[in-house]
Amino acid sequence: LVLQPYDARFSCRVITLPGFISFNTPVENVCSMMEQGLRGGFTTLCLHATQGIYHSQDLDALSNQIESNLNGIPTNYTIYLDAHRDNAHSIASLFKSCAGLYLRVTDSGTWWWKHLETWPSNSPILVEASGLVLTSILFGSVIHGSRPLHITQVCKKEDMDIIRAAKNKGLAITCDVSVVHLYGNHIIDSRDKEALWENLDMIDVVYGPLYQTISLLLASVQEGRLSMSWVESRLVDNPRRILGLSQPSDTFVEVNLDTCWTVEDIDSPFYGQMCRGIVQRTVIHNEIAYLDGKMLYKGQRIGRDVRMEDKGLSESTYSYS
Amino acid sequence: LVLQPYDARFSCRVITLPGFISFNTPVENVCSMMEQGLRGGFTTLCLHATQGIYHSQDLDALSNQIESNLNGIPTNYTIYLDAHRDNAHSIASLFKSCAGLYLRVTDSGTWWWKHLETWPSNSPILVEASGLVLTSILFGSVIHGSRPLHITQVCKKEDMDIIRAAKNKGLAITCDVSVVHLYGNHIIDSRDKEALWENLDMIDVVYGPLYQTISLLLASVQEGRLSMSWVESRLVDNPRRILGLSQPSDTFVEVNLDTCWTVEDIDSPFYGQMCRGIVQRTVIHNEIAYLDGKMLYKGQRIGRDVRMEDKGLSESTYSYS
Ligand SMILES: [Zn+2]
Ligand SMILES: [Zn+2]
Ligand SMILES: [Zn+2]
Ligand SMILES: [Zn+2]
Ligand SMILES: [Zn+2]
Ligand SMILES: [Zn+2]
Ligand SMILES: [Zn+2]
Ligand SMILES: [Zn+2]
Repeated sequence: LVLQPYDARFSCRVITLPGFISFNTPVENVCSMMEQGLRGGFTTLCLHATQGIYHSQDLDALSNQIESNLNGIPTNYTIYLDAHRDNAHSIASLFKSCAGLYLRVTDSGTWWWKHLETWPSNSPILVEASGLVLTSILFGSVIHGSRPLHITQVCKKEDMDIIRAAKNKGLAITCDVSVVHLYGNHIIDSRDKEALWENLDMIDVVYGPLYQTISLLLASVQEGRLSMSWVESRLVDNPRRILGLSQPSDTFVEVNLDTCWTVEDIDSPFYGQMCRGIVQRTVIHNEIAYLDGKMLYKGQRIGRDVRMEDKGLSESTYSYS
Repeated sequence: LVLQPYDARFSCRVITLPGFISFNTPVENVCSMMEQGLRGGFTTLCLHATQGIYHSQDLDALSNQIESNLNGIPTNYTIYLDAHRDNAHSIASLFKSCAGLYLRVTDSGTWWWKHLETWPSNSPILVEASGLVLTSILFGSVIHGSRPLHITQVCKKEDMDIIRAAKNKGLAITCDVSVVHLYGNHIIDSRDKEALWENLDMIDVVYGPLYQTISLLLASVQEGRLSMSWVESRLVDNPRRILGLSQPSDTFVEVNLDTCWTVEDIDSPFYGQMCRGIVQRTVIHNEIAYLDGKMLYKGQRIGRDVRMEDKGLSESTYSYS
């Protein structure tokens, strides 16, 4: 495909950004999610299979399902392994072929302790936990050589306070927040929502619904609530560093900033929110996968398993200052 | 009173030990407890008022009640302040007049976080907590400059495992176990009870019912399950170091080792347990307070508030190796 000179033609303001990382993406229909990713500028999906046929430590099943898709592979991807009560020893050896370990704890057990012991410290652990469970797991990380932990889906003031205290103490902690919790109406307590906005400096990664995230964030840049460098570092640089992925120059996104609108779907959690900017073009490994509303990847395996591509883990270079 | 040469007269085997510290003593009737202390060799009671007229941060009420006893003051004492949901700021300034802070947490709140912040780090905090709450509080101590914590009333294998891990990591953690949990029948799970006995090296302090503790421990020394130096360090040296109290040479206990018996009270938690050794004489500040079953302190203020006597806190010299 030849690049079209549409920028000049419409004289609209277009910016180019590196492709975004969707850091915590629950798997439903992978291929349609990847297409949504293309529309929203997400060129890498970090998949977390929690149920259905993909659930379990069976990396191969999900990977085969993606790789064998006749329609092609729209975006890059990588897969988290799911920590269970009884699989600490059986999955630890698989760390090189996955994005990291996904550790969701909602009960009051301490079965997760074994995972902190067995999961290699140079592969990330995403921790989805809150309150006492969260602080207990943070203590577990201190005991196990202060191994890095990434706290995912932070949505409570108390948890953010704990993360701030841990970071100030110099612990190797990072965290992410979903755009759903930053912008959604009545999803969380307004006190919690305020705390997220007051702790923007503590948030290392942001992501959300694949199609809407960049437009919500860019509207806040316009309003002056967020800086452009905050957005880019949370969507691209920090996720890459935490996961130990390289930053390819051949994968990028063009966003037209001139389009603004308000979400009018009364059933949307973002009803009434200002949006700004539309992805016009998504280029993955030098191939235009998406252009002006049209999927151009069809039949091509444009996306790759980025963990396999990077051939094992480089030491993470993320600084926890 | 003139010391009687009864040792020679009866030619029984008598050992002299420094007076014992009852490290965690719930207050009921203070003066009768102190008399029990004399009978059992406990020359200092560390009092913890959890209810009734003494409950609260009102140190003075309990202190006055003891000091104004016309019958005299049988033993030394010191008082823990009780950490509550809302008193972190009001009690922190009282640290010099008390033994330390008593922090009991059974709910899933994080109100105790404030206490870790405000309580001076050179005054002890006794933590009564288990499981996730315990690990959360240990994490709180890491965040707050790795301040020392003493875990009291440990009676679960899981908690002992956590304490072992924390100590091995070099954290400034100490702990105590009650004789009730070490020896009692059907008080805790047999698995937990075994874990306590398997972790004798992790236990810094031991105490229990004032009259029975030394006899239960000495029976185990006789059996070879405990060493005499383990008993002495857990009843005397470690408690003193943790509380920053001096070791007076004028306060000691004489124990006749020749008496052995089995607990025959079927309602006792110690039913069937071997006991060995009876306290013959308890000397406090060079005064014989108790001799051969007779209370000799009557009308005298033999015991003192040891915290006030030591005039503020010396830096704790306890080593957490
Ligand atoms: Zn699962
Ligand atoms: Zn371990
Ligand atoms: Zn939510
Ligand atoms: Zn490439
Ligand atoms: Zn209380
Ligand atoms: Zn603090
Ligand atoms: Zn008990
Ligand atoms: Zn004295």
